[in-house]
Amino acid sequence: MKPCLAFLVALSLQAAVAEWSYQTSWYEKARQDKVARGTVWPQPRSIDTTSVRYYLDPRSFKLEADSSSAAVSDPECKEVVDHALSRYGGLLFWIPEEDRAGVDGDEILDKLVLTITRGCTRYPSLESDESYSILVNSDGATLRAQTAWGALRGLETFSQLIYGENGKHVINGTSISDSPRFPHRGIMIDTARHYLPLPFILNHLDAMAYNKMNVLHWHIVDDQAFPFQSATFPDLSGKGAYTRKHVYTPDDVSQVLEFARLRGIRVIPEFDTPGHMMSWGQGHPEILTRCYPTSFQPDIYHLGPANPARETTYTFMRKLFEEIRQLFADEYFHVGGDEVRFQCWNSNEEVHQFMVQQGFPNSTQGFADLQGYYIRRILEILHQVPETTRGIVWQEIFDNFEITGDLTGLNLDTIIHVWEWNDTRYQGEPFREEMAKVTAAGYRTILSSCYYLNYISYGRDWPQYYECDPHDFQGTEAQKQLVIGGEACLWAEWVDSTNFIPRMWPRASAVAERLWSPQDVADSEAASPRMEEQRCRMVRRGIPAQPQGPSYCEYEWNILSQLPNYRPVITSSGLRVTEGLFHIMFLDVLVLAVVKCLA
Amino acid sequence: MKPCLAFLVALSLQAAVAEWSYQTSWYEKARQDKVARGTVWPQPRSIDTTSVRYYLDPRSFKLEADSSSAAVSDPECKEVVDHALSRYGGLLFWIPEEDRAGVDGDEILDKLVLTITRGCTRYPSLESDESYSILVNSDGATLRAQTAWGALRGLETFSQLIYGENGKHVINGTSISDSPRFPHRGIMIDTARHYLPLPFILNHLDAMAYNKMNVLHWHIVDDQAFPFQSATFPDLSGKGAYTRKHVYTPDDVSQVLEFARLRGIRVIPEFDTPGHMMSWGQGHPEILTRCYPTSFQPDIYHLGPANPARETTYTFMRKLFEEIRQLFADEYFHVGGDEVRFQCWNSNEEVHQFMVQQGFPNSTQGFADLQGYYIRRILEILHQVPETTRGIVWQEIFDNFEITGDLTGLNLDTIIHVWEWNDTRYQGEPFREEMAKVTAAGYRTILSSCYYLNYISYGRDWPQYYECDPHDFQGTEAQKQLVIGGEACLWAEWVDSTNFIPRMWPRASAVAERLWSPQDVADSEAASPRMEEQRCRMVRRGIPAQPQGPSYCEYEWNILSQLPNYRPVITSSGLRVTEGLFHIMFLDVLVLAVVKCLA
Repeated sequence: MKPCLAFLVALSLQAAVAEWSYQTSWYEKARQDKVARGTVWPQPRSIDTTSVRYYLDPRSFKLEADSSSAAVSDPECKEVVDHALSRYGGLLFWIPEEDRAGVDGDEILDKLVLTITRGCTRYPSLESDESYSILVNSDGATLRAQTAWGALRGLETFSQLIYGENGKHVINGTSISDSPRFPHRGIMIDTARHYLPLPFILNHLDAMAYNKMNVLHWHIVDDQAFPFQSATFPDLSGKGAYTRKHVYTPDDVSQVLEFARLRGIRVIPEFDTPGHMMSWGQGHPEILTRCYPTSFQPDIYHLGPANPARETTYTFMRKLFEEIRQLFADEYFHVGGDEVRFQCWNSNEEVHQFMVQQGFPNSTQGFADLQGYYIRRILEILHQVPETTRGIVWQEIFDNFEITGDLTGLNLDTIIHVWEWNDTRYQGEPFREEMAKVTAAGYRTILSSCYYLNYISYGRDWPQYYECDPHDFQGTEAQKQLVIGGEACLWAEWVDSTNFIPRMWPRASAVAERLWSPQDVADSEAASPRMEEQRCRMVRRGIPAQPQGPSYCEYEWNILSQLPNYRPVITSSGLRVTEGLFHIMFLDVLVLAVVKCLA
Repeated sequence: MKPCLAFLVALSLQAAVAEWSYQTSWYEKARQDKVARGTVWPQPRSIDTTSVRYYLDPRSFKLEADSSSAAVSDPECKEVVDHALSRYGGLLFWIPEEDRAGVDGDEILDKLVLTITRGCTRYPSLESDESYSILVNSDGATLRAQTAWGALRGLETFSQLIYGENGKHVINGTSISDSPRFPHRGIMIDTARHYLPLPFILNHLDAMAYNKMNVLHWHIVDDQAFPFQSATFPDLSGKGAYTRKHVYTPDDVSQVLEFARLRGIRVIPEFDTPGHMMSWGQGHPEILTRCYPTSFQPDIYHLGPANPARETTYTFMRKLFEEIRQLFADEYFHVGGDEVRFQCWNSNEEVHQFMVQQGFPNSTQGFADLQGYYIRRILEILHQVPETTRGIVWQEIFDNFEITGDLTGLNLDTIIHVWEWNDTRYQGEPFREEMAKVTAAGYRTILSSCYYLNYISYGRDWPQYYECDPHDFQGTEAQKQLVIGGEACLWAEWVDSTNFIPRMWPRASAVAERLWSPQDVADSEAASPRMEEQRCRMVRRGIPAQPQGPSYCEYEWNILSQLPNYRPVITSSGLRVTEGLFHIMFLDVLVLAVVKCLA
C-alpha cells in the first residue's frame, strides 16, 4: 500500500472513531444504565425475552387483524381494531427517515397478526376482559386477546417492545401473558377549578392508553364553575360556567366519550352532591339550601348544600341524571357526597322543620341522618333512570351511614371511594383502617388517598405513589377481593391547560403500574430505568411528561417550534459545528491528502 | 299597543336580559373583583389614571415613531424601534374580529407617537437608561424615552394599559413616569441539567420582556452536560453534550442574542469554574483534577474541579473565554465559583506539590488560598481578553477571600452573586448578613437566595418571592447603592421543555415587580388582581404561565389544538347549547307570536 493511501485509510478510520465517540459519549453511556430501552410500562404479569433480535422495516411492516377471528367478523370488534391498527401504525416507528439505517441482511419481522378469540361490547366496562398474550419468535409475531379491550392493551405492549438501535427499529424475541391486577384503574380530572380545553382532555386520554389506565373519572362541576351544558337546564352552565366559552357542549362530551371508547377507557362523570354545588345555584338557587348568617359564617353567596327538604330538589336531580345518563355510556355514576357543611343546614329553618317531620334529632347525628336520607334518595333515583346505573360515592357517605350503625340505606352495589389520608377517628392511622371497614361491611372500594397528584414537592416524588398498595390493610381474602382498584386524582386549584399534562405525567404512570402489575412489582429503584423509558416514550408521542432528574430524551418536547415566533431561523451557516466543522476539516485534509497522493 | 305586540316586546326584553345575564354571571362578577383589567405589571414608579375612556380601532390604530427624534434618525434606535413597533402591533389587540364591537361614536385614540430624546447603543448594558413617560389624554397618546431600551419598556406598559370591555379595546386617560429601581433584573436558566430547545428560550425571552426583566443569565454548561458548541474546542460539546443534537451552535447563540437584544435583554453566559465541570472532562480530561479514592469518596468519573496546578488549564480557559467573549456581547461574564470540592484537590499529589510551591498551608485555609489563586488568574484572563470583560461570581469566591482576610485578589469590579439561604457561619441568619458583608467590603452584589424558583410547594407561592427585598439588610446608604439587583433562578434538575415555562411564569413575575417597582410596592394581597391580569395577559400572548388558584382566563392556553390528533371535530350540531338552544327556543316562540299577532 502506498504510504499516502495508508494515511487516507487511517484518516477514514479516525473519522469513523470520531463519529463513534459521539454515539458512546459519557452521558450516553451513563444513560444506557439509566434507561431500559424497549421495556414495557406497566410491567406485564409474565414476560420472557430472548436475546434474538428481529428488525422491523417501517416501509413494509404490517399490523394485521386475523380475518378468521372476531377482530374482523364482529363489527364491534372491527371498529375498535381498525382505529387501533391505524393509530399504532403511527406509533410503532419514530426514527426520522434521514436517521434510519437499512435492515437488509437482518432477520426481518414483517407483521403482527392480531386475533380476537371471543367478541366485543360497544363500551368497555368494569367487567371487561383486558387479558392478552404476545409471541414474537422466528415464526413471526402474534397478539391474541379475548376482546378488543385486551387487543388494545396488547398493541400498546407490542409498540413498547420496539426500541431504536443504530438507526434501526428492533424487537427481541418475546413471550408475554398479561392481564391487569385491578379492573378499575382510574384518573380523576377536575374541570371546575379550571376549565380544560378539549384537546388537553384528549391528549390525556392518549397518555392513559399508553399507561393502560382505563377509567377517566370526570369531576366535571364543582363550587367554582358548572361547565357542563345541560339541554334540560341550560341555565346551569349559562349562569354557572366561568364564561359562555368555558363549557363542554353535548358534542364535546360525545367526542371525549368516543375518543376514550376507542382506547378502551370508560368515562365516569361526577356530579358532586349535596355539597360542592355553589355554581349550580347561579342558575338554580331553588335547589340549594339558603345559609343564614346567625349560626353560620356568612359568605358572599349565602347558598350551601342541596336543599334536602324540598321534593323539587329530587325532581330536578332526577331530570338532570336522566339526561346525563343518556349522554354518558357507563353503568357507574359518581355522585360525590364529600365535605358537606352541616352548619348551613343547621342555620335553615325549613331544613329544621323537615328534620322534625322525619324524626331526626337536632344534633350531628341528626344531620348525618339527613345526609343519609338525601343520598338514599339520590341512589334510588340512579336506580330508577331508564338504564341500569350504580353509584360511586366519596367515603363520607359510608362514614355517615356507619356512624348511625345502619347501613341498609346504602345499597351494596355502591362503590366507596376512599380519599382521606388520616381519619381522626382512627388516631391518625392513614386510610388503611377505612379500607378495612368499608370492605368488612361488604362494599367494593377504590383507593385514592395516597394518589393525590395535586400535592407537589421538590424532587422525585413518584415513588411514594408507586409504593402505596391498595391491598395494604388488615383484612380477609374476601375483603381484598372487594378492592376493585384505585384512582390518581389531580384536583385543579393550581392546574390548568398550561401545566396539566406535565403535572399529571409521568407521576400518574406510577399509579398505573401499581394498579396493573403484580403486587410484588413494587421496587421503585428497579422500576426507574423503565420509568425513564416510558417518560421519553410519552414525550416522543406528543405527551409533555415532565422529567425525573437530570437527563435527556432523544426526542425532546418541542411544540413551541410550531409557533411562528419561535421557529428557528435556518441560515446558510446553520450547520452544526460538531458535524459541520468536523466534516469541513475532514474534507480539507482529505482533499489535501488526495492531492498529495496523486502528486 | 296591541297585546300581542306588547308580548313581542316583552319577549325581546327577556331575551336581552338573558343575554345580559351571561355577561354578568356570578363568577364573572366575582372575577371583576379578582382581576384588575388594564393594570400594569410591574407597577410603574408613578401612574395617574383618569376615568375618561378612549377607544382604539384595531383596523386603523397606528404606532408611530416621531421622525424628528432619534427613534428614526439614529440607526441603532431605528432598528430596535422598527422591530418593536411591528411586534407590539400584534400585541395591542386580541379580541377576535367576530367578537368585536364597533367604536363609532366613541372617543377614538388613533395613534401612539414614540419619541426618543437621546440616542442608542447596539446592546443594552448595566448602564442603560430604561426610563420613559407616557401621556394619554384628549390630545392623543405619547411615549417619550431617552433610549430605545426605555422605549421598549414604555411600549410594554402602553400595551398593558389597553383592556377589553364589551368587545371594545379601551384605554383610560393616563399619565406615567417610570424607571426601574434596580438596573440588573435577571433570570437564570440552566441548560445543562436538561437541554432546552431554542423555541423555549425565545418564548422565555418574550415573557421576560412582558415583565421588564433585562438580564438572561445563561448557566449553559455544568457537570451533567456541555451543550455549548465551541469552535476552538469542539470536543467539549462533541463528547460532553448529551447527544450531538443536544447542543447550541454559534448560530443558535446568535439567535438568542439577537432576539434578546431586540427586547432590551442582556445575555450573560456562565461557564462555571473551577467546580461543576465534569462534563468538560469528557472532551478535555487534562484540564480537570483527577480525584484519588484514598481520601475522597470515589465516583464513577474520578474527575473533579479544574486543575489549578497546570499552566495549560489557564491557557485553555483563555482561549475558550476569548471565543465566548467574541460571541456574547455583554461586558459581564459569569465564571461561577460555587461548590468547589476541596476533597478532590486534597487527594491529588500534583495539586499538593503546587500548593507547597506557592506556600499555601496544607489546610482548609490552604485550599481557600488555592481557589483564590485560581479565581484571581481567571479574573485576570477576563481582563486580558480583547474586549473589556468583568466577572460575576457566586458568593463562595467572596467568602473564601474574606476568610483569608485579604480581598486584594478579588478585583473590585467583580459582582458578587449571593445565592445561599443560610450561612452556618452566621448561625442561621439568612443571606442578609452576606449582603451586608459583601457591600461593606465595597463590592456590587446581586441577590438570588430568596428567588430560587426550582423549589416548589403546594399552593400559591409567589408572595414569598414578592416579599423578599434586596435592600432588607443592615447597612449604610452607600452599601444599599451597591445592590444592583437580583435574579430569579430556575435550576433544571426537575425542569425541561415540558414544564419550564409554566414553572417559571408567573412566579418570576413576582421577582420582576420586586426589582422594578418602588420598594413600598410590597403588598402581595394588593398585587394579586394585577398579577391575575398579568398571568392571563401572558397566556393570551402565547406564554403558558401557570394559574394561581381557581379561576379562568378569557383566552386559555390551547396550543395542543394545533396537533392534528386533538383538533376539535367541527360538526353541524356543534352549536353551543346555551346559544343554540336558546336562540332556537327564542325563534320558535317569536315565530309563534308573530303568527298569533297576524292572525
